[in-house]
Amino acid sequence: MPKTNAFYAQSGGVTAVINASACGVIETARKHKDRIGKLYAGRNGILGALTEDLIDTSKESASAIAALRYTPSGAFGSARYKLKSLEENRAQYERLIEVFKAHSIGYFFYNGGGDSADTCLKVSQLSEAMGYPITCVHVPKTVDNDLPITDCCPGFGSVAKYVATSIREASYDVASMAKTSTKVFVLEVMGRHAGWITAACGLAAENEGEGPHILLFPEIAFDQDRFIARVEETVKKYGYCVIGVSEGVKGTDGKFLSESGLRDAFGHAQLGGVAPVIANLVREKLKYKYHWAVADYLQRAARHIASKTDVAQAYAVGKAAVEMALKGRNSVMPVIVRKSAKPYKWAIGAAELKDVANQEKFMPRDYITADGFHITAKCRAYLSPLIQGEDYPPFKNGLPAYVQLKNVAVPKKLSTDFKV
Amino acid sequence: MPKTNAFYAQSGGVTAVINASACGVIETARKHKDRIGKLYAGRNGILGALTEDLIDTSKESASAIAALRYTPSGAFGSARYKLKSLEENRAQYERLIEVFKAHSIGYFFYNGGGDSADTCLKVSQLSEAMGYPITCVHVPKTVDNDLPITDCCPGFGSVAKYVATSIREASYDVASMAKTSTKVFVLEVMGRHAGWITAACGLAAENEGEGPHILLFPEIAFDQDRFIARVEETVKKYGYCVIGVSEGVKGTDGKFLSESGLRDAFGHAQLGGVAPVIANLVREKLKYKYHWAVADYLQRAARHIASKTDVAQAYAVGKAAVEMALKGRNSVMPVIVRKSAKPYKWAIGAAELKDVANQEKFMPRDYITADGFHITAKCRAYLSPLIQGEDYPPFKNGLPAYVQLKNVAVPKKLSTDFKV
Repeated sequence: MPKTNAFYAQSGGVTAVINASACGVIETARKHKDRIGKLYAGRNGILGALTEDLIDTSKESASAIAALRYTPSGAFGSARYKLKSLEENRAQYERLIEVFKAHSIGYFFYNGGGDSADTCLKVSQLSEAMGYPITCVHVPKTVDNDLPITDCCPGFGSVAKYVATSIREASYDVASMAKTSTKVFVLEVMGRHAGWITAACGLAAENEGEGPHILLFPEIAFDQDRFIARVEETVKKYGYCVIGVSEGVKGTDGKFLSESGLRDAFGHAQLGGVAPVIANLVREKLKYKYHWAVADYLQRAARHIASKTDVAQAYAVGKAAVEMALKGRNSVMPVIVRKSAKPYKWAIGAAELKDVANQEKFMPRDYITADGFHITAKCRAYLSPLIQGEDYPPFKNGLPAYVQLKNVAVPKKLSTDFKV
Repeated sequence: MPKTNAFYAQSGGVTAVINASACGVIETARKHKDRIGKLYAGRNGILGALTEDLIDTSKESASAIAALRYTPSGAFGSARYKLKSLEENRAQYERLIEVFKAHSIGYFFYNGGGDSADTCLKVSQLSEAMGYPITCVHVPKTVDNDLPITDCCPGFGSVAKYVATSIREASYDVASMAKTSTKVFVLEVMGRHAGWITAACGLAAENEGEGPHILLFPEIAFDQDRFIARVEETVKKYGYCVIGVSEGVKGTDGKFLSESGLRDAFGHAQLGGVAPVIANLVREKLKYKYHWAVADYLQRAARHIASKTDVAQAYAVGKAAVEMALKGRNSVMPVIVRKSAKPYKWAIGAAELKDVANQEKFMPRDYITADGFHITAKCRAYLSPLIQGEDYPPFKNGLPAYVQLKNVAVPKKLSTDFKV
C-alpha cells in the first residue's frame, strides 16, 4: 500500500480517557511513518473534516502526545453532530471524502459511540463507491457502556470508579452524621437510557449495611410507594439511607422523573436534576433530613481517579485501530474481549461496523436484583474488573497537570466553504 | 499530675481529615500511658457524653487507628448538636461533668468548629467551678475555613483541592464540547457564609482563558445584569464559560438565591441547589446550552483526593492537643501558623479559646477581584499552599479501603438517663 495521511476525530460526549485513545492512535501512527504520513485531527470532531479545519498533530512534541494519556476531555475538540442519513444528505458524506482526498487521507479513525460507528461505516462505503477508498476504523468510546459486542466501553470504567468511590465516601459521611442530621443522601449519575453507571455505584456496597442501599435504574419503572417504603425500612435498620439514581429514571407513565417535578419561578420545567426530585419526595413523605448531589460532568471528566484498566483499554483500542488499518482491515472496530473473569484477563478483538452501528446494549435483567433496587452478584462480577487499578496524573501546584495542545491548523486546499 | 482518662468527640459536619485529627489524638495519647489512661470517644459526638454512650478506643488495634489517617467521615459519629448557653441549660453542662467524673475523665478533646470551641471553653470553666477541673483542648476542624487566629482550618485544604481539581476537569470537558454543545457549566460548592471554598475553585484558572471564568461569592451580592453580561462576554471571548458558585450566594435583597427560584410540583420552595437557579437564568437570558453540578457531600468526603498538607495539619493539631493538655494548658486550641509563604512553612501555635469561640473569619475583600467575579493574586498566594501534595488512601477491589472501627461501648456507671 502507498503511504497516505490519516485523519482522527473525536465524537460525542468526552470522557476521562478518550485522549488516551488519541494517544494510542497517534503514537502508533508515528511508529509507522513508512505507511502513514501526517496524522491530522479534526478540530471539533467531524466538523473539522466538513469545514476543512484540520489540525496537524505532527506539530506536537512526543511528550505532549504522551500527556494525552492522562488528560481528560477531547484534546482536539469533540462534537455533538450527527450526520444525516446518506439519502437525506449525501452532500455531507461527499464533502468529507472531498476533504480527505484533497489532503491525501487514506485512513479515517473515528473515536465515539454508536452514531459515529454508523458514520464511519457510511464513509467507508461511499468512498469506495466514489473511487477513493478510505480505510475506516472506529475507536470505541462511551461512558454509557452501551456499545454491542465489546465487553465494555473505554470511558465507562473510569466513571464507574469515580461514582463508586464518591458514593462510598458520601456514605461514610452520612453514616457518621445521621444520628442528629442528614439521614438520606441522593447521588444522581449519568445514564439516560442504560443503568450501567448507576450499577457501578453499587460496587461501593461490599458488606451488609453499607451504602448505597438503593439504586434507581432507568430500566426499572419508578414505583413511588415501594421506594418510600424501602427508604423508611433502610433508615430504621441502618440509621441512614444512601441512594444512587440514574438521570434517566422514568415513572410508571414512562416520563422522565427529572421532568416531572421542578418548576422555576416562571413555571418552566426545570431540566435535569432527578436527585432533588427524589430528595424532595423523601422529605414530603418521611420528613427525613436529606442532602443531594449531582455529579454531572465531574464524573466523566474525573481523570484524577481514573481506572487503570480503563486507561489501558482506551490506549489499546487506539493502538489496535491503527494496526488494523495497516493490515488492511476496513469498517471494523477494535473491541475488548474478556478472556478470563477471575483473574481478569482481556485482549483486543475486532467487530464489523455493520454489527455495531446504531445498536444499544442495555443492562441484562439478571444484573439487577429481583426487587429492582440493587445489583446482583453477577453484575458485580462483570463490573468489578473494570475499576481495578489507579492511574494518577502528574500534579503541579497541587492540581492535575493536564496538557493543552498547540493544535496548529493545516493550510486549506479547497476553495469552497461548506455550511454545517 | 495523676493519671486520668481522656474523652474525645467529633462535632458538626465531618470532613475528609477529621479522622486524621482523631488519629493524632489517639496515637499521641497511647504514647503517654503514664499520664493518660483510657481514651474514650463520644458515640455521635457530644451526645455520647450526655447519654453516657462512650466508646473504648483501646479496643481498636494500632493498625485500625493508623487507618483513621486516611479514612474520611467521623469514625465515632459526629453530631449537629449545639449546647445551649450556660444560663439556658446549665443542667447539660453539669451532666457532661458528671459523666466525665464517673469515668475519671480529666481531659476533654473536642474536635469541631466555632460552636464546639465555645462548648469546650464552658466545660472548662464550669468544671473548675464545680471542683472537678477538666483540661479542655479544642481541636480545630471545619471545611468552611472560618475559624479565627489559625492560618487555615483542617478539612478546608482537602475540599479546596477537590473543588479546584473537579472544576479544572469539568472546564477541560466543556472547552472541548462547546462548539456544538454545552457552553456554560455551573458547579455549586459549599460555604453558606464565607466564600473560601468558592475561592479555591479559582485556583484551577492558572492561565488566561482557563476556567473557572466566574466565581460567585456569598460576600458579593448577586447582580443579575452584570453577571449575565459577563457570561456572554466570556462565551464570546473563549467559546465557553465555567462558573463556580457558593451555595450561600445572596441577591441584592439579601435573600439566598437558592431559595428564590425553584418550586416543586406542589409549589413548595426547593431547598438547596443554587446551581440550577444560575443555570436556568443563563438559559433564560442567553439561550446557551448549559450543564450544572452540585458537589454537596462529595466535596467534604473526598479523601481520595485529599491535600497532603491538610492531612498533615489535621494530624498535627490532634497530636498537639494532647501534648498541650499534658503540659497543663487549658482552654486552648492548637492553630496553624504560617511561618513562611514561599516556600510554604507552617508550625503549630496555640490560641486561647476565649479568643476563638463564636468568631467567624470571612474572606478579606482584597482576596476578591474588584469586579467581584474572581480571586486576586493575594488570595491565590494564601490558598495555593493548602492544596499541595497528594495523600492517596490504599485501594482494595478498585475502591478506597477505609476503616470501620469496632466502636465497643464502655459499660455505663450512672444509673440516670439524660434526655437530649
